[in-house]
Amino acid sequence: MIGRISIAAAALAYGSAAVGSSTSVPPVKHWSIDDIATTPVVTDILLTNGRQSIAYVVRAADVAQNAMVSTLWIADINGRKRRLLRSSSIEQLRKIPGSSDWSVLADLGAGIQLYRVTTKGRATPIAAHDPAVGFGNSDHSVHSIIYDAPKKIGISSYGWSPDGRWLWYAVLKEMPDKREVRFDEAITPEFNVRRPPIDAEVEYHLRDQEGQDRIIARRPVSDRIALYFGGNISWGPSALRYEMENVAKDGQSRFVSASVDLASGVTKDLPDPPSSPFLPPPVGPRGGRLITVGFGQSRQLFEELESGRRIAYGRAGFLLDDLRAAGSWRSVDGRMSLIGVRTINRPRYALLRVDEHSARLIDDPNSFTKCDFAADLSVGACVREGLAKAPELVLVRPKERRITVIAPVSERHSAITPLRITAKEWTNKLGYFASGFVVWPRDYVAGRRYPAIVITHGSDADERFARQDIQWNYPAQIFAEEGYVVLLINDPAPSQSSLLSKAYEQWSTGTGNLVPDEMQKLIWFNSIYSYEVAIQNLVAVGIVDPKRVGIAGFSRGAQLADVAITRSCVFSAASSGDGSYLEPYAYSWMQQSYNAIFGGSPFGPALSKYKEISLSLRANDASGPVLRQLATPLAGAIDIYRALRAADVPSQVSFYPGESPISDETHLFHVPTNRIEAMGENLAWFDFWLRGRRSAEMPFPARYATWDAMARSWPGQALKPNHCSSPTRSQ
Amino acid sequence: MIGRISIAAAALAYGSAAVGSSTSVPPVKHWSIDDIATTPVVTDILLTNGRQSIAYVVRAADVAQNAMVSTLWIADINGRKRRLLRSSSIEQLRKIPGSSDWSVLADLGAGIQLYRVTTKGRATPIAAHDPAVGFGNSDHSVHSIIYDAPKKIGISSYGWSPDGRWLWYAVLKEMPDKREVRFDEAITPEFNVRRPPIDAEVEYHLRDQEGQDRIIARRPVSDRIALYFGGNISWGPSALRYEMENVAKDGQSRFVSASVDLASGVTKDLPDPPSSPFLPPPVGPRGGRLITVGFGQSRQLFEELESGRRIAYGRAGFLLDDLRAAGSWRSVDGRMSLIGVRTINRPRYALLRVDEHSARLIDDPNSFTKCDFAADLSVGACVREGLAKAPELVLVRPKERRITVIAPVSERHSAITPLRITAKEWTNKLGYFASGFVVWPRDYVAGRRYPAIVITHGSDADERFARQDIQWNYPAQIFAEEGYVVLLINDPAPSQSSLLSKAYEQWSTGTGNLVPDEMQKLIWFNSIYSYEVAIQNLVAVGIVDPKRVGIAGFSRGAQLADVAITRSCVFSAASSGDGSYLEPYAYSWMQQSYNAIFGGSPFGPALSKYKEISLSLRANDASGPVLRQLATPLAGAIDIYRALRAADVPSQVSFYPGESPISDETHLFHVPTNRIEAMGENLAWFDFWLRGRRSAEMPFPARYATWDAMARSWPGQALKPNHCSSPTRSQ
Repeated sequence: MIGRISIAAAALAYGSAAVGSSTSVPPVKHWSIDDIATTPVVTDILLTNGRQSIAYVVRAADVAQNAMVSTLWIADINGRKRRLLRSSSIEQLRKIPGSSDWSVLADLGAGIQLYRVTTKGRATPIAAHDPAVGFGNSDHSVHSIIYDAPKKIGISSYGWSPDGRWLWYAVLKEMPDKREVRFDEAITPEFNVRRPPIDAEVEYHLRDQEGQDRIIARRPVSDRIALYFGGNISWGPSALRYEMENVAKDGQSRFVSASVDLASGVTKDLPDPPSSPFLPPPVGPRGGRLITVGFGQSRQLFEELESGRRIAYGRAGFLLDDLRAAGSWRSVDGRMSLIGVRTINRPRYALLRVDEHSARLIDDPNSFTKCDFAADLSVGACVREGLAKAPELVLVRPKERRITVIAPVSERHSAITPLRITAKEWTNKLGYFASGFVVWPRDYVAGRRYPAIVITHGSDADERFARQDIQWNYPAQIFAEEGYVVLLINDPAPSQSSLLSKAYEQWSTGTGNLVPDEMQKLIWFNSIYSYEVAIQNLVAVGIVDPKRVGIAGFSRGAQLADVAITRSCVFSAASSGDGSYLEPYAYSWMQQSYNAIFGGSPFGPALSKYKEISLSLRANDASGPVLRQLATPLAGAIDIYRALRAADVPSQVSFYPGESPISDETHLFHVPTNRIEAMGENLAWFDFWLRGRRSAEMPFPARYATWDAMARSWPGQALKPNHCSSPTRSQ
Repeated sequence: MIGRISIAAAALAYGSAAVGSSTSVPPVKHWSIDDIATTPVVTDILLTNGRQSIAYVVRAADVAQNAMVSTLWIADINGRKRRLLRSSSIEQLRKIPGSSDWSVLADLGAGIQLYRVTTKGRATPIAAHDPAVGFGNSDHSVHSIIYDAPKKIGISSYGWSPDGRWLWYAVLKEMPDKREVRFDEAITPEFNVRRPPIDAEVEYHLRDQEGQDRIIARRPVSDRIALYFGGNISWGPSALRYEMENVAKDGQSRFVSASVDLASGVTKDLPDPPSSPFLPPPVGPRGGRLITVGFGQSRQLFEELESGRRIAYGRAGFLLDDLRAAGSWRSVDGRMSLIGVRTINRPRYALLRVDEHSARLIDDPNSFTKCDFAADLSVGACVREGLAKAPELVLVRPKERRITVIAPVSERHSAITPLRITAKEWTNKLGYFASGFVVWPRDYVAGRRYPAIVITHGSDADERFARQDIQWNYPAQIFAEEGYVVLLINDPAPSQSSLLSKAYEQWSTGTGNLVPDEMQKLIWFNSIYSYEVAIQNLVAVGIVDPKRVGIAGFSRGAQLADVAITRSCVFSAASSGDGSYLEPYAYSWMQQSYNAIFGGSPFGPALSKYKEISLSLRANDASGPVLRQLATPLAGAIDIYRALRAADVPSQVSFYPGESPISDETHLFHVPTNRIEAMGENLAWFDFWLRGRRSAEMPFPARYATWDAMARSWPGQALKPNHCSSPTRSQ
């Protein structure tokens, strides 16, 4: 064994800048719902100006304007910040080779186009395409898998050759509207969309230093590498390589690569397909692919060389292939690699430094969520953040494992007095462990029992600051300010077990030999058992009041809230966000995954398996009221609502509109007022059903009349023991 | 018994006008698909100009313009016709009291507004409202129950007081767009619409002779009397009465009336609600309500007086309350009433003349579909048409029962050599009879067996000319030209039996005590047994080839085509138009009627009842391929398509687009090219699967490759005996 990993607490050197410090105890600055709604996310970062400055883009809600806004900033290493640009969209901040200027895609009034930006913030066009094409969750637009406000795109991506001689860029072009009759599978995706998307194509341009512009290729928008990753281009000395996704008639994707000769513009297909088109695997210090092998405690990190030989680096307590991590880099001399990883314990995004001798985490209790490193990897600019730490700009010196704080990203958020947050792990009765965090009530007093709320969304409970990914419209920080114990709990990680990995694989591919009972146990009850352990532990030590426990989750989390409310007796109220997966209604367009979970159509013998976990078929067993906030009027959500009401279980569906009559709110809400109202509504929902009280944050006070009426006619109404006979029914 | 009905063949006096006559046998003029697509419908008629002229509005497709167009014409009693106006919409043609001019609602470039039109065709505005509001099957519009192209409405209805001193009109006004969160049942109707409708209100205006204009009331668009009938206004000497529909929170409608004092404008609610708001019952010569009592052969016509006393007029072989009939009138002296009725045998729209002594049909083998009578009912102008008779303008003298032909409505259609059409009645094995018609192949030769197609849609098989109501996109006339026997068959009429009426009542209200088996037998198998008798009779006498029989129907007809293809062995191919009712998918928003038919949700013991008639659950039993033409991407239609394909039964769904990216085709198609292509596609479908041949009318020849492939993999493929073991499986 050549390599070895040692996880060492990094020597943290805090800079003198920006974050005010004082020896007297400052007054507590509490969280507000607006604080959560305006949480900043750094979407781009550049170490620039001879390593003396950090340029970065912050995306956050502007509540007054009721829109998401991006701002481009520059900070010097002393922490002095200046705002350079503000736009509905700023993306793909890059250095222009051989220049001190940068380039960005931004909407400065003509849709998203390519601009040159000086360090003073002056923007001039480099390339543009008119008309820009609608993109997002709006009519007459290319539909997007990214949950953002509708936008107009002229240029969708670009890249400079390392020598600065060539510019590659991709134009999004609308295809002519064909009012034509369509058949069969061309129709099936459309029955549940408001308006079908327009058709468009991505046109690749190559421009030389003299400004001569050539069209290299046209790609359909079904090529996600073209639409979202601009072709994953890579530059050779005389050729450019790009990757393509070809979607066949059977819906299967095939990935291919092509190369463009820079001088002649001649394109040829390459024999080797891209190995992992959406996240190329990190490269190790010997030029091999870094991979992990095994499960749980025996997972090992290897570098797999071209020859097939594997170099071992020891145990891997992290995941390499996580898109939420900061990325991966290799030093110009090839001798060091730096990989953004997600840790399995106390989930966070760390940096793994790999050289020929060892692999070591540049550790920190928080996460590095965005970085840019100098070519020799001697220093980099990163965003560091954690559940209790607002994002800040830091310099990272990988070799010394030294971190220097430069400036907070948002003074407003850094000024909030952090809540007490404790990382936890729970092992459930199946033997699986789940990671997560306990957020303590602001004014926690030992000896008192508190109401509690579990918030769950897949694996998004990790060290990032107030991210929508986990807490969606559930204002975890406000819950804590209001006296709830909040538990952010992940699903048991598939990486811990071969069987669990197999179950997830079967869920996603539809093939495998686990029977529905096993699938349901491993992927749904498994999580619920974890919540039960977590709550029972806190009940056992006198912290949580077992009669006042709620559960909240969107999407994947909504599945679990829906299952938990009839399969566990722990919960007395639920809020399920924008989901209806598991509902029999969806069978016809979810056949592959539903067959894996249920064993077939609900109109046959498999119905009994739906009756195990589909909420609309189990309404009579609900142990508490269910709120459902929607961005789309999902039919399955409506089925659940109706079934619950028919069973006299209090329930409400709340549908949040888009910003205009032709657009919709997105799965992750992007309209600031919607987020603010939805957070207030969730607080009011749990306050009402768990604590029997009205909330000052309730955005729709007129609904209390309906809630009161539902409470009166509900046998298991708030604050009374629910009708569970044993604490757990999910056996 | 005072009254008595005698049905006498009217003495038909044909005028000399317009329709050319010749003693030599003219060459056969065949039907074309374009002829069907351009079938004219007279939507308004006025006897005018001192009974010397007929003004009328014709609605028909303009194929070159690819839109439905209305034209206003005037014809003198010698048959000379002149076109006065042409517009995307001309409605509510009325005389202006005390003037020789008329008024109409028309779109002359500013949306639908109220115009004065001279007999020379000069139009000047009377009242207008800007902006006009979108109305129809388009985004950002008030959604309509009328299947027409999207339009813009400023004025939606109007009326003159009989003395001409007052004008009443209704303005459609868009309500401000509220981007607000909505809850519960406010969301449920929206999950399957492309874009929710806008909100609007109908504003009633009253204008006096001096032009003073007062707003009398504002009504929500949920008031269908306001939106579609302009308040059903009636004028008294000093007051105006209008009717209202109030839709309560539970979705139930309550109907109320109000009166407006003309002088003061003061409105008060009236104690007596409208008795039948959408079709006021006809009034008899004694001022009583004309009604029928009883079922089948014992149905009797009565005049029910205010006192409750009933005057009998004898047996009633007709229905009084049919919206497709010409209307009802009472003479100014009150002594004669004239009622448009639908006959039960050989279904057509006749006129019933009722005086104190008797009730008699002014009979004709054809229908009177639109009429306007002089105040004394001595003469009227009508449109007469039949299955084999293109519409023509006639004068009707009720007292003499004399009919004079004035002019054809469309020379093009009157010139087509009529097909041979035979009225029929069939009594099925349950003892119920169904009415209908056989359309014979153009070149029928006795002794040869022909392929046959049943076309069905509720009760729309009647004496009207090439109406879309029955034949939708199924080109009955072209089928006959191409050598098919075409059967237009009605459902067994509920009026023939108390039990059948009860079943229909239970279907529509959801309440009743018939069990699902009985409901399914009476409302679906009952019709299918009728088709079987009809086909078997024609097979028995050597006319129809039992191996080449198809079935086609849209909406209600699609239900029957879907049920027939797995429950009868008569059919070897089907075309089901724009329907998916009976599919389990729809349960959650069809609960009331599905409970009546199936006894509950498909996710429970009632599933077995769905398996009796829901096509997606019976795909393996299909006896032939199923085509489904759609105006909406219905999820249930997609379920059927997928289930049939999974069972290797040839099937196709074809989705026809709206005229723009923001509008949809309607349930009754209104885009001319869509109708033309859909008719060609149906012909091609039946030609392919029943006769194994390709059609020159096929609008999508590229589809033949798919059809060929489906034929190869289908065990019961075209022209081979299907896998039925007994001729009827619908026992």
